[in-house]
Amino acid sequence: MDAALQPTAHATRIVIIGGVAGGASAAARARRANASARITLIEKGPAVSFANCGLPYHLGGEIASRGDLLVATPKLFRERFGVDVRTETEAIAIDREAKLVALRLSDGTLEQLPYDQLILSPGAEPIVPPFVRGHYRNVTSLWSLSDMDRAIAALGDRESARTVVVGGGFVGLEVAEQLVRRGHHCTLIERNNQVLQVIDPELAKELEDELRSAGVVLRLGQSVTRLKTADVGAEDAEAGENIDGDFVTAVEIGEESIPADLVVLAIGVRPRTKLAVDAGLDLGPSGGIRVDRWMRTSDPDILAVGDCVEYQHAVLGHPTLVPLAGPANRAGRIAGSVAAGQEVRPMGAVCGTHVVRVFSKTAAGTGLSESMCRAEGIECRSVYIQAHSHAAYFPGAESMLLKLTYSPQGKILGAQAVGGMGVDKRIDVIATAIHFGGSVADLAELDLAYAPPFGSAKDPVHMAAFVACNDLDAYPEVVPPQTVLDSFQVVDVRTSKELERMPLEGAIHAPIDALQEMLPKLDRERPTITVCHSGKRAHIAACFLRGSGFKEVRNLTGGMQVRSQWLAAIPDPTVLQGGAAEP
Amino acid sequence: MDAALQPTAHATRIVIIGGVAGGASAAARARRANASARITLIEKGPAVSFANCGLPYHLGGEIASRGDLLVATPKLFRERFGVDVRTETEAIAIDREAKLVALRLSDGTLEQLPYDQLILSPGAEPIVPPFVRGHYRNVTSLWSLSDMDRAIAALGDRESARTVVVGGGFVGLEVAEQLVRRGHHCTLIERNNQVLQVIDPELAKELEDELRSAGVVLRLGQSVTRLKTADVGAEDAEAGENIDGDFVTAVEIGEESIPADLVVLAIGVRPRTKLAVDAGLDLGPSGGIRVDRWMRTSDPDILAVGDCVEYQHAVLGHPTLVPLAGPANRAGRIAGSVAAGQEVRPMGAVCGTHVVRVFSKTAAGTGLSESMCRAEGIECRSVYIQAHSHAAYFPGAESMLLKLTYSPQGKILGAQAVGGMGVDKRIDVIATAIHFGGSVADLAELDLAYAPPFGSAKDPVHMAAFVACNDLDAYPEVVPPQTVLDSFQVVDVRTSKELERMPLEGAIHAPIDALQEMLPKLDRERPTITVCHSGKRAHIAACFLRGSGFKEVRNLTGGMQVRSQWLAAIPDPTVLQGGAAEP
Repeated sequence: MDAALQPTAHATRIVIIGGVAGGASAAARARRANASARITLIEKGPAVSFANCGLPYHLGGEIASRGDLLVATPKLFRERFGVDVRTETEAIAIDREAKLVALRLSDGTLEQLPYDQLILSPGAEPIVPPFVRGHYRNVTSLWSLSDMDRAIAALGDRESARTVVVGGGFVGLEVAEQLVRRGHHCTLIERNNQVLQVIDPELAKELEDELRSAGVVLRLGQSVTRLKTADVGAEDAEAGENIDGDFVTAVEIGEESIPADLVVLAIGVRPRTKLAVDAGLDLGPSGGIRVDRWMRTSDPDILAVGDCVEYQHAVLGHPTLVPLAGPANRAGRIAGSVAAGQEVRPMGAVCGTHVVRVFSKTAAGTGLSESMCRAEGIECRSVYIQAHSHAAYFPGAESMLLKLTYSPQGKILGAQAVGGMGVDKRIDVIATAIHFGGSVADLAELDLAYAPPFGSAKDPVHMAAFVACNDLDAYPEVVPPQTVLDSFQVVDVRTSKELERMPLEGAIHAPIDALQEMLPKLDRERPTITVCHSGKRAHIAACFLRGSGFKEVRNLTGGMQVRSQWLAAIPDPTVLQGGAAEP
Repeated sequence: MDAALQPTAHATRIVIIGGVAGGASAAARARRANASARITLIEKGPAVSFANCGLPYHLGGEIASRGDLLVATPKLFRERFGVDVRTETEAIAIDREAKLVALRLSDGTLEQLPYDQLILSPGAEPIVPPFVRGHYRNVTSLWSLSDMDRAIAALGDRESARTVVVGGGFVGLEVAEQLVRRGHHCTLIERNNQVLQVIDPELAKELEDELRSAGVVLRLGQSVTRLKTADVGAEDAEAGENIDGDFVTAVEIGEESIPADLVVLAIGVRPRTKLAVDAGLDLGPSGGIRVDRWMRTSDPDILAVGDCVEYQHAVLGHPTLVPLAGPANRAGRIAGSVAAGQEVRPMGAVCGTHVVRVFSKTAAGTGLSESMCRAEGIECRSVYIQAHSHAAYFPGAESMLLKLTYSPQGKILGAQAVGGMGVDKRIDVIATAIHFGGSVADLAELDLAYAPPFGSAKDPVHMAAFVACNDLDAYPEVVPPQTVLDSFQVVDVRTSKELERMPLEGAIHAPIDALQEMLPKLDRERPTITVCHSGKRAHIAACFLRGSGFKEVRNLTGGMQVRSQWLAAIPDPTVLQGGAAEP
């Protein structure tokens, strides 16, 4: 199908800049929508598209063959879709008046390419931190195939290299996991006090425990101050002179020096907007290219998709950057249709749904975390449950911690989970409910698939929803796990054995099944909080005390398990004020 | 907390009949809602509740300990919830006027128990087929613990017993799997032409292939005519005399005799409604107890939950029997609240969401199958996709076949999937969308979690939704895989190798990447259907042909893969008429 149908002289000329994720999707869709359009895909790199998300896994060897990352070849695009693929070609300017894109070819020559419809899919680019003052042979991001190749080359055939990962986001965690999997030592340095900013600290703590137990050295709340090189003195490095291609021997955090054979930078990404800005296209409030729901920029003949644009956020209700592959692919499909002149349904709002594997744990989330709600000034409540991936009586069940966040009116704002199998399933279900603007009561009503190997008759999603409904119905209310308990009558309904393992000072010990006998020793008039390990028995106890005439009873959601993670994650007690309940 | 608070003389008396699933949930919830109520749980069997769904797995040894099935003990209910648990006690009549339940205790004595609120949770009972004319030591259903014990006893320490399972529904499939897992021979006899009536035949065919390759002998479309016993002649058996406790030696299908050491009957269940009918409570159109959304029967003081009631169906919009554990548990929670006088949100509509594991395959579904739509006279369209559980380039991806069924207006009517990992996740996501009355366009917009070990940037749910949206937008339309192709110009875009493996007579061979050259040989005026292996290339080809001026092009959804399953499942071509496209 080379060049598809012979295009007529007046055939629509569609030019797509950038192939990764959104761009390639747009090209394939545009061709299906318009058999006669001339479609040109401009790509700066050597591959029309590649599995960006797979890079860490080839570095770690879990994806054995590099070729497996090349999911869409130029040949396929040329032969099947009749797309003129021009790799190693850079788009350097857009003349909107003349509808021309200026290209620089690999040999340096310049060329003008006319378009009727232009789709921008330049993606994002890794943020280069200030301590990087040149190019080093063993320091790299992990954003392109050549980044990955450089990392693999730096490791060479070393069997247990000393590696440092800077940044504890998705890519940082995946890279750390894969380096350790490969037998290397790994230190992960994260400027914030937790890994994975996108989730709340008490859940991040679960991942941090997993990373540490797998051998990753975590340096949280610390910043790299300098890269130490082999051949260049400090003064030269400061001056940024002649250090290109040097070897970094260590990463310095202030006075401390961490030896390194490989440094992977995973600080984050920012949208590639230069081309759009130079062409005078509007940016949105978060710095991405402003688009409407049909991915049209402020110029009606230019569309944009992928990590460089802002998407409408389903919960925030305003546009935001979401540099993830899912939205990029869906947006590409829409832009391809629009550019080809085909009517199409608009882009849906996004929830920032994400998932990452960290050794035996999975962390996933959708919508807003509690921290994000606070940052945005959105009033919220949260509950936690501990649950199993499937019926506990069936072999192989793995546990998960699920946090559900909702408005005081019950609208789902977000959910996060860390655990074993099935974490992704529960988050996808809740993401689906968020798409429809659902409430926690909706989650309680869902009819989900159950058989012992797959779930429970009361799914973790149901359990979280039940607990949230109880809270909203004041049946009774919950207090956050980090609540300052000093001014309450705290009734700890755990067993003596549990208390030994994880003490709670100042609480009255009244094991759940002996609560009746303890009643005379408790003060019905004092504001009371019940506590157990996970929150389940504390709820039963709170119901019982309320039924026994206690004036004000609430239960600690998430129990001692989450409280202990909170206290370990945020050792500064003043931070707890935000979650404090008024006695 | 024995007997909870000392109940006052006027405390509400809540009586619950039946503990499995809904009943136990109701008791626990009622206690939390009302600390002073007198709650009595009447259970005919020896256990207050047990893991009904786990029975096949203990028979097969996958759940090693029988005790693991006893998920809620009478002790827990007595001590933690202050529920008066009375096992081995049968409720034999309800006097609604006097608000009394008549009980028969295990020693035969009768007793009257007063109630203010009564919750019926008697469940369902296995259907006994007409060829069972007494009790046999080695013939049993698998519905209760004693059924399971009988099956285990019948197998004894035999290492490769000859077993026959009658009925190919959920329980029948699980039992067959577990018996084979244990090393036994297994013949599965199913009266219908397919296993698992709840899914469509071409998907059931995937399970049948799996069963056969695991060694299960399938006898589809065949009925048991007689059980042959060791000591009783045919005449006596016909007369139904004196065969109680005899051993069955073979299962007969007409003239044929299949030797059997154990026969498990898994024909299905029917609601236990005798108590309700005798008490004059209304039944619904499908024969279950009629309840409102708060689980109240036609008597305002009697509630009912579980397999004995009718639930509102989310897609059908009318009440129906759904003998599954999920709805029963949610309904129990609601009934417990209502009986205890607590305000509570109503029961959600159900979709019949289900999942079953059959060796290495999982089958799951939600809403209506295409067969159900036809039976109910509901107009529907369906598409199929082949997809991977996660990114194909990441190790361990398993394939699935997903069928999405929707109204001509795009409303989701149902979905079914058979495959490996992740089938349950996709069905749960679609079940969630059905809860909200969602459309296939909603599914295309969902923001689902993606990382290579968990999914794809375009999730199988998205892919199915994209294909459905294409169909609805006539971009181009699909035709069903079983379409009679004779009157069409059929363009087969597969490779020569694929054609060799699975020929398609009467088609014009035009490999997708050579379609351009083949154009002169094709007739633009003839109604055309494009065909490939899975439907993906056929869609691209159909787009191309339409763009090349073909008057009427459609593509065969599901491709040759699903078509071959259809033809194998329904060998009678007259059945295909229903899916025929008008040329």
